[in-house]
Amino acid sequence: MFVTFEGLDGAGKSTQINRLVQKLKEQGMKVLVTREPGGTLGGQQIREWLLNPDADWTPIAEAYLYAASRAQLVETVIRPALQKGEIVICDRYVDASIAYQGAGLGLGERRVAVLNELAVQDVRPDLTFLFDLPVTDSRHRIVQGREGQQLDRIEKRTTEYFERVRRSFLAIAAAEPHRVVILDARQNRETLEQEIWLTIEKYLT
Amino acid sequence: MFVTFEGLDGAGKSTQINRLVQKLKEQGMKVLVTREPGGTLGGQQIREWLLNPDADWTPIAEAYLYAASRAQLVETVIRPALQKGEIVICDRYVDASIAYQGAGLGLGERRVAVLNELAVQDVRPDLTFLFDLPVTDSRHRIVQGREGQQLDRIEKRTTEYFERVRRSFLAIAAAEPHRVVILDARQNRETLEQEIWLTIEKYLT
Repeated sequence: MFVTFEGLDGAGKSTQINRLVQKLKEQGMKVLVTREPGGTLGGQQIREWLLNPDADWTPIAEAYLYAASRAQLVETVIRPALQKGEIVICDRYVDASIAYQGAGLGLGERRVAVLNELAVQDVRPDLTFLFDLPVTDSRHRIVQGREGQQLDRIEKRTTEYFERVRRSFLAIAAAEPHRVVILDARQNRETLEQEIWLTIEKYLT
Repeated sequence: MFVTFEGLDGAGKSTQINRLVQKLKEQGMKVLVTREPGGTLGGQQIREWLLNPDADWTPIAEAYLYAASRAQLVETVIRPALQKGEIVICDRYVDASIAYQGAGLGLGERRVAVLNELAVQDVRPDLTFLFDLPVTDSRHRIVQGREGQQLDRIEKRTTEYFERVRRSFLAIAAAEPHRVVILDARQNRETLEQEIWLTIEKYLT
């Protein structure tokens, strides 16, 4: 089973991933947790370059770099774990590229989806939790969490950019209701945790 | 005018690029010389990752990384120079990806060509010099030039790999005879220089 978590920064994905993993492990299940970009040695290097505020990647180069990190992660980490029957949880996946580079940077959602086909091949999420949050809330939470530290290259983008990203995520969810569960990320942690667990339980039984 | 140089390592591309650039400049022309992967700050970083003998990039990740470096180079260096009317000379371009990743690594030549479409868009070479050299000669020249230094990640590949790469370059040349000029890289430097110059002169007049 392959589960992805998507949504704007500050939506609380990491907290909920940690809680879900703990619960699954308590039930005796093998779980592998990873993230994008990153998750491999090479992917981690790509992550640092993508987020470096001084880097000047063009939108197209950025899309290829995410795809490179993804290809490495799929082939060396995600697919092997799935083949061993483990539950794989990934913080961001192709939906994020479609939303951030396709819609946000204006490369086109369809074009970015096609660009990623070779990277993911048949490894597609069974279930995706979309943490939906108004852009102003997301911005607010990021700045609060940062305590004066510099924002990264992507966090520095405009509100209009993140509005396009959010709308794109919601469009993906609308197009694939059987895969994508929309969560209102403004709810409290316990409610979110429960909603996620109910969905997972239903899926596992 | 956009001119690319292709061929196996050790074929003498760099020497001939230097000579050509010097001649063009003597004629008062504006010339921009660049190379792949590299040619930009980000591209140089990608080059180091790709050639690092300890890196374990999968074939697909490798193809995306070359495309990322290419996208950055096209948009920030090659296209602006062409728009200013400069002659751009690039050491390796898309043909190299088709040959090295498409044929060499078995990803498929057509697939790698398609993967690169977004990176290059309308920026395609007017003229390509293919330095053709038997694989044994290429290997021999590389090892000689290295004086005991470690081979990079790509140089370490097998003879069979480089045979596929060479055949792929020759197939591209056969398919596009108006763009690709095949040069026998075993000829002496002066002969090669003359052949290249005659072709360039014909093109410029």
